[in-house]
Amino acid sequence: MEQIKPYKKGVDYSYTLGAFPTFELIKSHPELVQAVYLHSTFTDRESLVHLCNKYKIPVLTDDKLFRKISDKENCFVIGVFDKYECTLDQNKSHIVLVNPSNMGNLGTIIRTAVGMGIQDIALISPCADIFNPKTIRSSMGALFKLRHQHFDSFKEYRELYPKQDVFTFMLNGTNTLEIQNCPKTELFSLVFGNEATGLDDSFLKEGTSICIPQSPEVDSLNITIAVGIGTFLFTHQGK
Amino acid sequence: MEQIKPYKKGVDYSYTLGAFPTFELIKSHPELVQAVYLHSTFTDRESLVHLCNKYKIPVLTDDKLFRKISDKENCFVIGVFDKYECTLDQNKSHIVLVNPSNMGNLGTIIRTAVGMGIQDIALISPCADIFNPKTIRSSMGALFKLRHQHFDSFKEYRELYPKQDVFTFMLNGTNTLEIQNCPKTELFSLVFGNEATGLDDSFLKEGTSICIPQSPEVDSLNITIAVGIGTFLFTHQGK
Repeated sequence: MEQIKPYKKGVDYSYTLGAFPTFELIKSHPELVQAVYLHSTFTDRESLVHLCNKYKIPVLTDDKLFRKISDKENCFVIGVFDKYECTLDQNKSHIVLVNPSNMGNLGTIIRTAVGMGIQDIALISPCADIFNPKTIRSSMGALFKLRHQHFDSFKEYRELYPKQDVFTFMLNGTNTLEIQNCPKTELFSLVFGNEATGLDDSFLKEGTSICIPQSPEVDSLNITIAVGIGTFLFTHQGK
Repeated sequence: MEQIKPYKKGVDYSYTLGAFPTFELIKSHPELVQAVYLHSTFTDRESLVHLCNKYKIPVLTDDKLFRKISDKENCFVIGVFDKYECTLDQNKSHIVLVNPSNMGNLGTIIRTAVGMGIQDIALISPCADIFNPKTIRSSMGALFKLRHQHFDSFKEYRELYPKQDVFTFMLNGTNTLEIQNCPKTELFSLVFGNEATGLDDSFLKEGTSICIPQSPEVDSLNITIAVGIGTFLFTHQGK
């Protein structure tokens, strides 16, 4: 196996930092894991080593590697894996992120989506790197629980997945989202824009545009909060 | 005026980084602003200088200061202000944060609260530094739009603010929060725990404990998402 280097977007592997996301990685995609590194001072080895043995994943020790690639002192486990791309499930509801730029936000949105039972995320490029260790850390390993697929444009996404009812979240959306009026639909795509620029006005014509009501005292809600509120309401209709 | 130094928790002043939060600072608390620094390359000066002149706030130039205290290259405005403490409004609904530890989360929660019309936040110590420039940046200046007050314990908070109906957000909360069953109450305190540990079981006896339903696929929701969903539901009842 080649020597592991600090993460770069262009390489074909990435890694989890910490025991929890490494467990999630192995349980979801054991065939993609190249190796698991344990720091020599890591004590809680048994279950992790057992899991690695089950899938014939090499367990290695290389304390220098931790200093080289982790900026946190409390990281004792690294899971090296091959990057992968998925195909979304055409019969499930999706979250669509148009040009998300912040890796921490992307990870938090992934964690939120999985927490709400959404397991398909479409990413419209340019897009923050979903495999950057920062994104993975911020997703708390939830990245490995969902399908993600990149598209060059929203149009390309729609051509492949035309069945979902589209709802675009925009500050100038036509429909103000309230608890009592959240659309009831079985199969939906919730579309969110870039942190700084939101969705441009062309999205007003894609499906139903929605505005989350908010005080004029703030410029906007953080995108992760908008995703949290929107997804909660759409996934809890009629329950 | 003393020389401005990189931020430390112990000093009695802090600063905004960037034009937007500096505007918010001046508009909300002009009497606390010691000075505003503009980078020599900053072009959009007129409205900011006008606002400073209105409140007799010194406008200074010191490009070295930017290199010294800002880690972002696109920061052209610094607003130096005296730290302050508030008293909550006893007749308004509150958000109570018990031992929040992450400054980014704290700022995002502040921005979310103000966005939902909640303008009173109680902080139970130990607590992330609300005046750290990272918190202010993450709040997008919303910090200056609300009242915040520190307490040594939840008990101390309750003794001063006994009128609010208390709702504690806990993974093992007794009541599962759904759109249809969110309690309707005019005056509430929504209580959230630390990012890693949540609220301890003693909070099960404080008011009504609430669990936001979530997939077993995730360990928990990010605290900022829990605050966003909880606050949206409580502030949009009966609308």
